[in-house]
Amino acid sequence: MTTVLVSFSTTFGTTEKIARAIAEGAGMVEDTSVSLRPAADTTAEDCLGADALIFGSPVHMGSVDWQMKKLIDTVCAWQWGPNQLVGKVGAVFASSSGIGNAGSGAELTMLALMAHFAEQGMILVPLPKNTPGYLTNGLHWGPTAITGEEEGRPVGVPDDQLLVARHHGMNVARVAAAVAGKRLLNP
Amino acid sequence: MTTVLVSFSTTFGTTEKIARAIAEGAGMVEDTSVSLRPAADTTAEDCLGADALIFGSPVHMGSVDWQMKKLIDTVCAWQWGPNQLVGKVGAVFASSSGIGNAGSGAELTMLALMAHFAEQGMILVPLPKNTPGYLTNGLHWGPTAITGEEEGRPVGVPDDQLLVARHHGMNVARVAAAVAGKRLLNP
Amino acid sequence: MTTVLVSFSTTFGTTEKIARAIAEGAGMVEDTSVSLRPAADTTAEDCLGADALIFGSPVHMGSVDWQMKKLIDTVCAWQWGPNQLVGKVGAVFASSSGIGNAGSGAELTMLALMAHFAEQGMILVPLPKNTPGYLTNGLHWGPTAITGEEEGRPVGVPDDQLLVARHHGMNVARVAAAVAGKRLLNP
Amino acid sequence: MTTVLVSFSTTFGTTEKIARAIAEGAGMVEDTSVSLRPAADTTAEDCLGADALIFGSPVHMGSVDWQMKKLIDTVCAWQWGPNQLVGKVGAVFASSSGIGNAGSGAELTMLALMAHFAEQGMILVPLPKNTPGYLTNGLHWGPTAITGEEEGRPVGVPDDQLLVARHHGMNVARVAAAVAGKRLLNP
Repeated sequence: MTTVLVSFSTTFGTTEKIARAIAEGAGMVEDTSVSLRPAADTTAEDCLGADALIFGSPVHMGSVDWQMKKLIDTVCAWQWGPNQLVGKVGAVFASSSGIGNAGSGAELTMLALMAHFAEQGMILVPLPKNTPGYLTNGLHWGPTAITGEEEGRPVGVPDDQLLVARHHGMNVARVAAAVAGKRLLNP
Repeated sequence: MTTVLVSFSTTFGTTEKIARAIAEGAGMVEDTSVSLRPAADTTAEDCLGADALIFGSPVHMGSVDWQMKKLIDTVCAWQWGPNQLVGKVGAVFASSSGIGNAGSGAELTMLALMAHFAEQGMILVPLPKNTPGYLTNGLHWGPTAITGEEEGRPVGVPDDQLLVARHHGMNVARVAAAVAGKRLLNP
Repeated sequence: MTTVLVSFSTTFGTTEKIARAIAEGAGMVEDTSVSLRPAADTTAEDCLGADALIFGSPVHMGSVDWQMKKLIDTVCAWQWGPNQLVGKVGAVFASSSGIGNAGSGAELTMLALMAHFAEQGMILVPLPKNTPGYLTNGLHWGPTAITGEEEGRPVGVPDDQLLVARHHGMNVARVAAAVAGKRLLNP
Repeated sequence: MTTVLVSFSTTFGTTEKIARAIAEGAGMVEDTSVSLRPAADTTAEDCLGADALIFGSPVHMGSVDWQMKKLIDTVCAWQWGPNQLVGKVGAVFASSSGIGNAGSGAELTMLALMAHFAEQGMILVPLPKNTPGYLTNGLHWGPTAITGEEEGRPVGVPDDQLLVARHHGMNVARVAAAVAGKRLLNP
């Protein structure tokens, strides 16, 4: 059994919808158990017990949301010292406004999430261009939902955003199954 | 007289069109002289003689185009040792495909260009959200043109892309006029 | 009178010491008034009233500390909508462990802080290489103090860390004096 | 048989020494075949034939060396369109001067290399903190050699730099063996 944890913070609910689709996708892979947690309710045990961690955040002022960062700094950081997450699998996602039409800071936001997983010594799964739904909803680092159009008015979550999210979850679950328990990165 | 250098590399001509609009905007500011140069033809003298440098690149594989980087590594790098560009003004722009609908790597591309200007000790001018044309053509780091839609087919350069580019040029020229020759960053 | 706000979060006190040295440097520039605030006590009025904002953070898990990000997301973000900080001056600093001997994530940490200032449309002041004290205590984005050596044991704050910090404060205050009130980036 | 390609550009030879140590480490993993190539001599066939790609670059002006970027833009980019590298394994390394004592831009340099691999849809292997030699020679993104001290004078390549490099090669080869040929990221 492979276990996947999906953790998110959300402002108006879009990031949560993407998180649910990712969790749903991961759960479609055989022998996979999935947990879905808001960042504020994610525990050290959730992280320790998972073979793969998928963290997502809205883009706020060009970087990761403080509530997701609080999870990382106050819960996950304690697992860094004793190298407890080394060799697990990590992946990320983000949601941003459509203002500017160029990601609005989704790239640095996902890189902040990736940096945490790299610090933990985890194997990172990006988002291949041939993933269904990518062409309108992604960066190479992970799926990026758009929460509003260029004037900032809210938009719904279209089907292809959920599609790419589900496939991201499937990708991560498959990689986790291939590497879990093998201690590939331990000296 | 304030002098502004706009340098660019281009693949299909979009980055050049944006570069021309930036140069045009800079030239609209009183007492400003502007040079427009392809990266391959930009010289050390061009850089030394300018009060502001504005560099732009297409996004290639998630980062700056090699031809623009060659200019930086083989021409500009020699001005870093003797601190010759310290206190000048720098700004950036990029053009990317529309694939993914989230910038396609425009952010790291512009940050690579910004990193060079920061290494040179230059004052950096980003792109404020209230700049005309920003809402459909920008990141906070600079204007970002879209060269193709999500399937990769070429798109033209719409008027508001040229509008935001012209205003970026004006912004940079005005900042350069305010700080040129004042040696604000020299100990 | 130019006004400078220095805001910081701190874990063991090193970031605060650097913040104090930056504030001290800014205050050495003629006609400059300086405020020094922990992130948790920084108010909207502090930001609105300043000509220059200098924000610093320890590096935590490869990115900005959540408490500094909370200031940005819950206080500063409200000034982004109405473009209230456009044209002000911004600069950053960080402190990191010495683990790895290559910055330990100070670069993405400072870029997250820079991203916020870019979102606000602020003029950015990096750290020129010829700044006194740079050679052992800086990145081009800003001063970087080392809080511990490679095994993580705490180190003190050596004189040249304070020296580069003071000069960073002076640089920012001088740039702020040159551009304050000129509305260079407003259309 | 797992195949690993190590490609590098080098200025004074340090990056090449690290590349050799990485290749040596990869070759120490059972059933692994390793190629070592300067960037200028790396071919499309080298990339297509490898299960893992490890690219390294000196830090030049805060970002990746133009010669390594030329390889990426003119050779590897052609494999992006047809998704030929999706699901392979990627890892990076860098060498920088010791100026500033905080990486001198090694982080954005390695992120530019990572961005390419993410664009290609490759599984990314960072550098865990418990890797032997990490404490004086690494960032979480990969090994970082120091080519000169803070005044820029050249330093040799100490044993622990070679040690961390060898282990990075071993890590990557083991991950490649676990995922090669499984098409985990293809829809």
